[in-house]
Amino acid sequence: MLVNSVERKIMWGDLDSLGIVFYPRFYEWIDASGHLFFEALGFNLGEVWKQRQICFGLVKTSCEYLAPGRYHQQIRIDTKVAELAAKTVTLDHRIIDAASQALMVQGLEKRICLDVSDSERFHARDIPADIHRALEQSAR
Amino acid sequence: MLVNSVERKIMWGDLDSLGIVFYPRFYEWIDASGHLFFEALGFNLGEVWKQRQICFGLVKTSCEYLAPGRYHQQIRIDTKVAELAAKTVTLDHRIIDAASQALMVQGLEKRICLDVSDSERFHARDIPADIHRALEQSAR
Amino acid sequence: MLVNSVERKIMWGDLDSLGIVFYPRFYEWIDASGHLFFEALGFNLGEVWKQRQICFGLVKTSCEYLAPGRYHQQIRIDTKVAELAAKTVTLDHRIIDAASQALMVQGLEKRICLDVSDSERFHARDIPADIHRALEQSAR
Amino acid sequence: MLVNSVERKIMWGDLDSLGIVFYPRFYEWIDASGHLFFEALGFNLGEVWKQRQICFGLVKTSCEYLAPGRYHQQIRIDTKVAELAAKTVTLDHRIIDAASQALMVQGLEKRICLDVSDSERFHARDIPADIHRALEQSAR
Repeated sequence: MLVNSVERKIMWGDLDSLGIVFYPRFYEWIDASGHLFFEALGFNLGEVWKQRQICFGLVKTSCEYLAPGRYHQQIRIDTKVAELAAKTVTLDHRIIDAASQALMVQGLEKRICLDVSDSERFHARDIPADIHRALEQSAR
Repeated sequence: MLVNSVERKIMWGDLDSLGIVFYPRFYEWIDASGHLFFEALGFNLGEVWKQRQICFGLVKTSCEYLAPGRYHQQIRIDTKVAELAAKTVTLDHRIIDAASQALMVQGLEKRICLDVSDSERFHARDIPADIHRALEQSAR
Repeated sequence: MLVNSVERKIMWGDLDSLGIVFYPRFYEWIDASGHLFFEALGFNLGEVWKQRQICFGLVKTSCEYLAPGRYHQQIRIDTKVAELAAKTVTLDHRIIDAASQALMVQGLEKRICLDVSDSERFHARDIPADIHRALEQSAR
Repeated sequence: MLVNSVERKIMWGDLDSLGIVFYPRFYEWIDASGHLFFEALGFNLGEVWKQRQICFGLVKTSCEYLAPGRYHQQIRIDTKVAELAAKTVTLDHRIIDAASQALMVQGLEKRICLDVSDSERFHARDIPADIHRALEQSAR
C-alpha cells in the first residue's frame, strides 16, 4: 500500500478569527496532495493534461474535522487510494498533527477521469490502462 | 421553510487552469452563505461570538459536483436547515446556475455549537434556546 | 470619467486571527473589479482571451492600507483608469467602507497587453485599437 | 545580512485559467515568508501577539512580476529587511525559480508595529527594543 506523505506548516493566512484553520484551506491542501500522489506514481497531471487531454475531475469531496489546526503547527497529509473503479478513483487523505500524530481531518476525494479535449464540454472516460494499473498497484 | 438565497458571479480568480471553478472556492461560498443564513434569522455570528462566546464549528462538510462553474457565470446559493439536534445543525447549500436553474453543486455543512470562551480549548454545548428555536422555525 | 463600482460584504473567511481582512483578499477583490471594469466597457475578458488570444497580465500591483476591514462590513470598490500607454494600462482601485465612505485601501494594478496564443510563451503587444479607445474614453 | 529562504512548489490551486499563478497567491506566500522571517529571528509572531498584544500590520505592499509561475514549479522565497525605522519595518521578498535562479517576483511589505490590546482599535507604537535589535542585526 503506497501512502504518499506531504508535510506543511499552518500559516497565519490559513487561520480564521478564532485562530484555527478556515476549513476550505484543508481542501486546498488535500487537492494539492492528490496531485502529489499522482506525481509519486510517476504521473505529472499537468503533463497528462497537456499530452493526453485527460483530467481527474471531482465527483464528491468530504472532510470530517476532529481537531482544529493552529498557528505554525506542523502537519502531515497522508494520501492513499481508498477505492478504484473503471472511471473513478477515491483518494483518502488524513491530515495529521506531526507532533502528536493525532488525526486532525479525515478527507475523501472521489475523482472521475475526464476527456477534456473539448474545453467547453468534458465527458467521462475510462482511466487509461497505465494510470489504472499504477493506482491499483499502489493500493496493494 | 426558510431558504436564504445569495447571488454571486464567478470571477477569474475562482477558476483553475481548466477554466472551471477550483472546488475549495465552493466551500468558501458555502461557508459565507451559512453566515448569511444565520444573519437572515437575526443572528450576526460575529456578534454572537463576541457577546456570548459561542461559535458554530465544523463536524463534517461535503459537496457533490454536478456541473462545472465558468468565467463570469451568475450563480445562486440556496441555504436551508437539513437537520437539527440539541448541539448540531446541518445546513443544506445548493449552488445553482442562475440562468438555467440547473444544480451545479450540492453541499452540506454539519456544524456543532461550541463554547469558545477558552480560546485554546473549545467544547461542545447545546445550541442556545433562542437560536435553536429560530433554526427550528426556519425548517417548518 | 468612468468609475465602475462593485459592492461586496466582508465575510468570515476573509478575516485573519485579528478579526481583520487578510490582505491578499484585497488583491483578489481588486483583480475581480478589474475584470468587471472591462466588462462595463463592453469587453468580457474571458471572451477576449478565447476569441483574440489576448490577456492583460500584471506588471506591478500595490496597495496602501488605511483602515482595517471587519466582519460583515459592507464595502465598495471604485475602479477607474489611472494611466494609459500603448501596451499598458494602470487601474486605480479604491476600497471604501460603504457606511462611512472612508477610504480603506488604495490599490493600483499596472497591466500589460499580452499575446497568449502560445500558451508557453506570452509576449507583450499593443492594446487593440477598440479596447484602447474605450479605455481612453473612460478616462475623460 | 540575514536572508531567510523558504521553498515551495506551485500547486494546481495556485493557477489561473492561463495556467500561471493567480497573483494574490504571491502575496499569500510573501505574508507567510514574513512570519517565517520573524521566526528565524527567534520571534514567533503568534506568541508575540498572545503574550505582548503586539502585531505587525500592513502599511503598504507591492509586487513586480518578471516571469510567470507554472504547475509544479519549485520556487524559493528570499526574505530580508529592506528598511527599518522606530515603528516600521519593510521586508524585501524575492520569489525565485529554483531551477534557473531567475527572479520571478520582487515583493515589498511595509509593516507597522501595532498595539492590539484593544481588539476594536489598534494603534501604532514603537517596535519593542529586543525585536528592533534583532531586525537591525539581521540587516548588517
